[in-house]
Amino acid sequence: MIKEQEDLYNLEFRVRDYECDLQGVVNNANYQHYLEHARHEFLISKGISFSRLHDEGIDLIVTKVEIEYKFPLRSTDRFIVTVKIAREGNVRIAFYQEIYRVPDKKLIVKAKITTAATRNGKPFFPAGVVAEMGLG
Amino acid sequence: MIKEQEDLYNLEFRVRDYECDLQGVVNNANYQHYLEHARHEFLISKGISFSRLHDEGIDLIVTKVEIEYKFPLRSTDRFIVTVKIAREGNVRIAFYQEIYRVPDKKLIVKAKITTAATRNGKPFFPAGVVAEMGLG
Amino acid sequence: MIKEQEDLYNLEFRVRDYECDLQGVVNNANYQHYLEHARHEFLISKGISFSRLHDEGIDLIVTKVEIEYKFPLRSTDRFIVTVKIAREGNVRIAFYQEIYRVPDKKLIVKAKITTAATRNGKPFFPAGVVAEMGLG
Amino acid sequence: MIKEQEDLYNLEFRVRDYECDLQGVVNNANYQHYLEHARHEFLISKGISFSRLHDEGIDLIVTKVEIEYKFPLRSTDRFIVTVKIAREGNVRIAFYQEIYRVPDKKLIVKAKITTAATRNGKPFFPAGVVAEMGLG
Repeated sequence: MIKEQEDLYNLEFRVRDYECDLQGVVNNANYQHYLEHARHEFLISKGISFSRLHDEGIDLIVTKVEIEYKFPLRSTDRFIVTVKIAREGNVRIAFYQEIYRVPDKKLIVKAKITTAATRNGKPFFPAGVVAEMGLG
Repeated sequence: MIKEQEDLYNLEFRVRDYECDLQGVVNNANYQHYLEHARHEFLISKGISFSRLHDEGIDLIVTKVEIEYKFPLRSTDRFIVTVKIAREGNVRIAFYQEIYRVPDKKLIVKAKITTAATRNGKPFFPAGVVAEMGLG
Repeated sequence: MIKEQEDLYNLEFRVRDYECDLQGVVNNANYQHYLEHARHEFLISKGISFSRLHDEGIDLIVTKVEIEYKFPLRSTDRFIVTVKIAREGNVRIAFYQEIYRVPDKKLIVKAKITTAATRNGKPFFPAGVVAEMGLG
Repeated sequence: MIKEQEDLYNLEFRVRDYECDLQGVVNNANYQHYLEHARHEFLISKGISFSRLHDEGIDLIVTKVEIEYKFPLRSTDRFIVTVKIAREGNVRIAFYQEIYRVPDKKLIVKAKITTAATRNGKPFFPAGVVAEMGLG
């Protein structure tokens, strides 16, 4: 069973020219940077600090990335990246993320990022962190 | 039915320090760069030129990326990226790719990259290109 | 003689984790990305479009970069990048740029970026563009 | 007085498509990545390990970068990056570096990278490291 958060986190970005490649569009790997940055800002917004977790021996790692590319972004485009989390089974946390162009809401990317946690290097479900994320 | 090529293309890389992040390992998005570079070198090895195709109105685009992260690469690690292609249905070409650390053959990443072609902006199956790739 | 603009262009950024390296600070090359993005946004703010210029056969190219690194930026730091332009001799335009951490105004980077223009591939002083930049 | 090493360190690279930008050439900041990677490989070739130094409290930091862009690299170009070191005064070590296209030896970039060392956070001249670098 998947439990989902109710509120949807958003972060707005603008394409920088150095993120575009020979074909005049954002290079595919850079969308992964955008998705990662939005997840980190989401966690910070929930008061979750990677460095504090790390000091407690807890690390969050990405185990799988699935990204569907619907339409490309171009130089100077504005866009928002959304973040929605869900528990997956007893061990994993999934981040469902989308990228929309602003202001026309054109869907650019749809992604699912699966993560796992370790404590002192061993698999571990971070119940406290999950509660802080708002998953209850 | 999926037809597969018989030979497996390989390209060797070495991790560069600027590809590593705060956690001391290669940043997740950089594996996508490695995979892309190996695909492009594979196509060049088959005599397939993006610019010639583009002049003929044909563009190859990535529609989906699935990457499983098994184990991280660290500063100065050597690794190989493999490329294996397969037709998928009548319209798409999939690239199955793996990354192995050298010399211990530790599996680092397993990926499937789905691509489609367009001719003059419209969906199109590039039979000629597929033959050049060795898919017959 | 160097003529300088009077107003100082500013753009605010926030460090993204993927821009940091093994040493826990922003990788040196990324400051060059920040400086470039601020210059491009400055030009856009003056109504100067690279693509329109390119259509007129005019290209602006960086011929020299000098960057002094005073203090490093770290994960989640906010900072502003300034842009000030000056004619240099009859042929070149220099961008004097600084990066300051927000909110404590700590100086991070001091840079001079020298550029030249070409028209149809030949050296050329873009008097019209320079006027649009506000250099008179 | 500047003392120079006698042998010239070289490292060969090939341009990857994701390193090129909208203008079809390698983005300016990426040359800084190439220069950095060549310096790190040079230090490794001399048996100098950043992590061992760090454990001894010694850090090498870049204080200034000067890069002249002579001619651009394009997709799939091969090139070599050279590294030559020199003491500068009593405190700094400078890396003189050039990038040449292969096989025509066209000069692409000329750079001087100035570095300083700290021990336990304080300015320090790393005489032992300098000897290992071959500067005597």
